[in-house]
Amino acid sequence: MKYPEPISKLIDSYMMLPGIGRKTATRMAFFTLSMDKSRVQEFADNLVSAKTDLRYCKICGNITTDEFCSICKDEGRDQSTILVVEQPKDIMAIDDMNSYNGLYHVLGGVLSPVDGVGPEELNIKLLLNRLRTNDAVKELIIATNATPEGEATAQYLAKLVKPAGIKVTRLAHGLSVGSDIEYADEMTLKSAVQGRREI
Amino acid sequence: MKYPEPISKLIDSYMMLPGIGRKTATRMAFFTLSMDKSRVQEFADNLVSAKTDLRYCKICGNITTDEFCSICKDEGRDQSTILVVEQPKDIMAIDDMNSYNGLYHVLGGVLSPVDGVGPEELNIKLLLNRLRTNDAVKELIIATNATPEGEATAQYLAKLVKPAGIKVTRLAHGLSVGSDIEYADEMTLKSAVQGRREI
Repeated sequence: MKYPEPISKLIDSYMMLPGIGRKTATRMAFFTLSMDKSRVQEFADNLVSAKTDLRYCKICGNITTDEFCSICKDEGRDQSTILVVEQPKDIMAIDDMNSYNGLYHVLGGVLSPVDGVGPEELNIKLLLNRLRTNDAVKELIIATNATPEGEATAQYLAKLVKPAGIKVTRLAHGLSVGSDIEYADEMTLKSAVQGRREI
Repeated sequence: MKYPEPISKLIDSYMMLPGIGRKTATRMAFFTLSMDKSRVQEFADNLVSAKTDLRYCKICGNITTDEFCSICKDEGRDQSTILVVEQPKDIMAIDDMNSYNGLYHVLGGVLSPVDGVGPEELNIKLLLNRLRTNDAVKELIIATNATPEGEATAQYLAKLVKPAGIKVTRLAHGLSVGSDIEYADEMTLKSAVQGRREI
């Protein structure tokens, strides 16, 4: 027996989502049938709206509904530092800790020759233009992920930007707060020793 | 910082799905942004279509796009047995094994006084009408889940139907095929001993 087309199509749609296999998608599809009609309509509207109403900030590459994102428009923020992240969601994580009040720049990924991602595919040109036309920026904090690709991208950016006399820093690597040395991996431990600080 | 409204609304929608928390919903929402516009539109259409185009079969309670489901309309199936399940997806699981060729009946749940589900909330009246108006049915196989509620519902149905002279059976309980006795739980082991068969 095959499911009626409307439900098997919905299962296929759910299966496109990351980490969702056929069993979970089927569960979600049947759950959808049990939802209020108005809720399902709202869900459908939200899907379309997220795709059509959102665009990328012309300054930093963050997602926004306007031409410029709320952070770039906020003049109360420290205009002298730009923190570079891979994805818009990284901004959320950093801004939620309430200890950074500068600007951001979203690369939209990391350099990865294997996946065909070169400097042209990232928002690097936008960043360089931004630094060139804005004298206020004194420091670039590179917060790409602590992966080999993130590291390579950080090195690449540092090489590009340093000659312009802008200070380039990288987030510290070391032990997670609350973690045991015993369970730390070798690379993390090495970074922690290299980055040791006087107390 | 808060996400722009279109994305935070989409995150909320994803969070309504079973087993999806904020982190996964956020990941799904950003994944949606990276999807083709046509795919997202299709996803939205499938959501609405599943909710509006599907209804319940007037005979057995299975989901269908027509008045009657494909199984009830299939005259090649054995009209003398009805297998009773909790949900439409259970039909799929049983029909996929290709060893049952009779009819089905979907209860739409199980008796559960705690959740306020009594006989009136289930498709029991529909089942009794079906048995009353159809002399061909000789056996009712009750395939509710092997939970206390499933068991209680099976007992309740058996009491209702037996006086009409219809044979009522229940799926066998015992060890899963391929499982170790060592790891079986006590109730399963007890069922397996009680239901032992001569070889």
